[in-house]
Amino acid sequence: MLRICAARLRSVGAPRCPRGGACPPASQPGPARRLFSSEKLTQRDHSLPNPSWSKDLRLLFDQFMKKCEDSSWKRLPSYKCEFSQQVQDFKTHFLDPKFMNEQMVHGQLFTRSFEDGLGFEYAMFCNDAEKRIVCLFQGGPYLQGAPGFLHGGAIATIIDATTGMTALLAGGIVMTANLNINFKRPIPLCSTVVLNSQLDKVEGRKFFVSCNIHSVDGKILYSETAGLFIKLDPDKRLK
Amino acid sequence: MLRICAARLRSVGAPRCPRGGACPPASQPGPARRLFSSEKLTQRDHSLPNPSWSKDLRLLFDQFMKKCEDSSWKRLPSYKCEFSQQVQDFKTHFLDPKFMNEQMVHGQLFTRSFEDGLGFEYAMFCNDAEKRIVCLFQGGPYLQGAPGFLHGGAIATIIDATTGMTALLAGGIVMTANLNINFKRPIPLCSTVVLNSQLDKVEGRKFFVSCNIHSVDGKILYSETAGLFIKLDPDKRLK
Repeated sequence: MLRICAARLRSVGAPRCPRGGACPPASQPGPARRLFSSEKLTQRDHSLPNPSWSKDLRLLFDQFMKKCEDSSWKRLPSYKCEFSQQVQDFKTHFLDPKFMNEQMVHGQLFTRSFEDGLGFEYAMFCNDAEKRIVCLFQGGPYLQGAPGFLHGGAIATIIDATTGMTALLAGGIVMTANLNINFKRPIPLCSTVVLNSQLDKVEGRKFFVSCNIHSVDGKILYSETAGLFIKLDPDKRLK
Repeated sequence: MLRICAARLRSVGAPRCPRGGACPPASQPGPARRLFSSEKLTQRDHSLPNPSWSKDLRLLFDQFMKKCEDSSWKRLPSYKCEFSQQVQDFKTHFLDPKFMNEQMVHGQLFTRSFEDGLGFEYAMFCNDAEKRIVCLFQGGPYLQGAPGFLHGGAIATIIDATTGMTALLAGGIVMTANLNINFKRPIPLCSTVVLNSQLDKVEGRKFFVSCNIHSVDGKILYSETAGLFIKLDPDKRLK
């Protein structure tokens, strides 16, 4: 719902969770005590291939990495935890202190809170000139709705993540105001699909983004979405 | 996206995953080999309180349990894995064999695939006469979007689960066709909120459901949703 400029922040920030692991409780010694310090990055980039990736996902990933060679496309890195200086700035400028509590130390990005292969496996690539993001997505067995298919909420989640990223690359810190999702066909569990997200229009602080999901061969349309995102007012804290 | 009559099925079915644990891989001996047999239930009902529940969630749960005493309201049990005979019937009647693969053995209901307190903690109560469902929901730290707030996808997920359950209690096996979600305010991480879902209209196989999310005291409106669900045609397999 709320987006911070994750891709850009992550590329320059300093996340500090254990490599590939969950954030430790606040009461434990170690990395959690060193939040927002100037230490080096040690977190794993989850947008890179791992052994759970299907052949389809790996092939598509390789195709888009080739597109990155002339810099028209860029891969967006992705981490479980967000402890960069910029995220701290978000807290300083937008987050009312009443929402800052010990639980936040345990916070993990929802789409990266599963072990490899069980949940959301995905890589996003952006094309700044075309104001587009392509997300290559494989939904694991812990995202099940009816037997054999992804839960509608899991589909909505990867749509929100992709459209939100499209808006924030254009507008900075944004918030999802509306998602209107048409589910055309159920998506088989553990299959690979492709999300295409496009910034359609900007009106003041409103960013209109559309998104569709297709099969790898492009023949099956799984869903269509219209999204509206609002750029946060830097003079107003969230309440 | 796809709904099977989970609450009702679960109450009469025979899920067979290890108590409170993940489903074992297909290659392992043990429970996974005995799917769809007639063994007794051993799975934990995750709609009952656990130590991660907040005071707010426990108080609301107790209030609704009192409402259940005259049978006007009913608590809907909820499990990680679905291996009841009725789920097998779903596979037989609606699921094309091409979608049935080894991965399905590992499948877990998305909203129950986290350890206690980290993800979706919720209990649903239905009122058949009013065609309503109330879902008491606490979103854990692994559902984070921006620091301190729930991911929009996590909100969409609990909305889809609640509205879908409302439709299926009226219509049987349904599929989400559309979700139009207005996000009014961000939901603080680890807070307790209340979803109110209502069946508004039925037109043939179309079930129209609305849903809002409020704070526990009812003073803050977090989101409003219009959902459309389609009852599956028993003569057509999903493709």
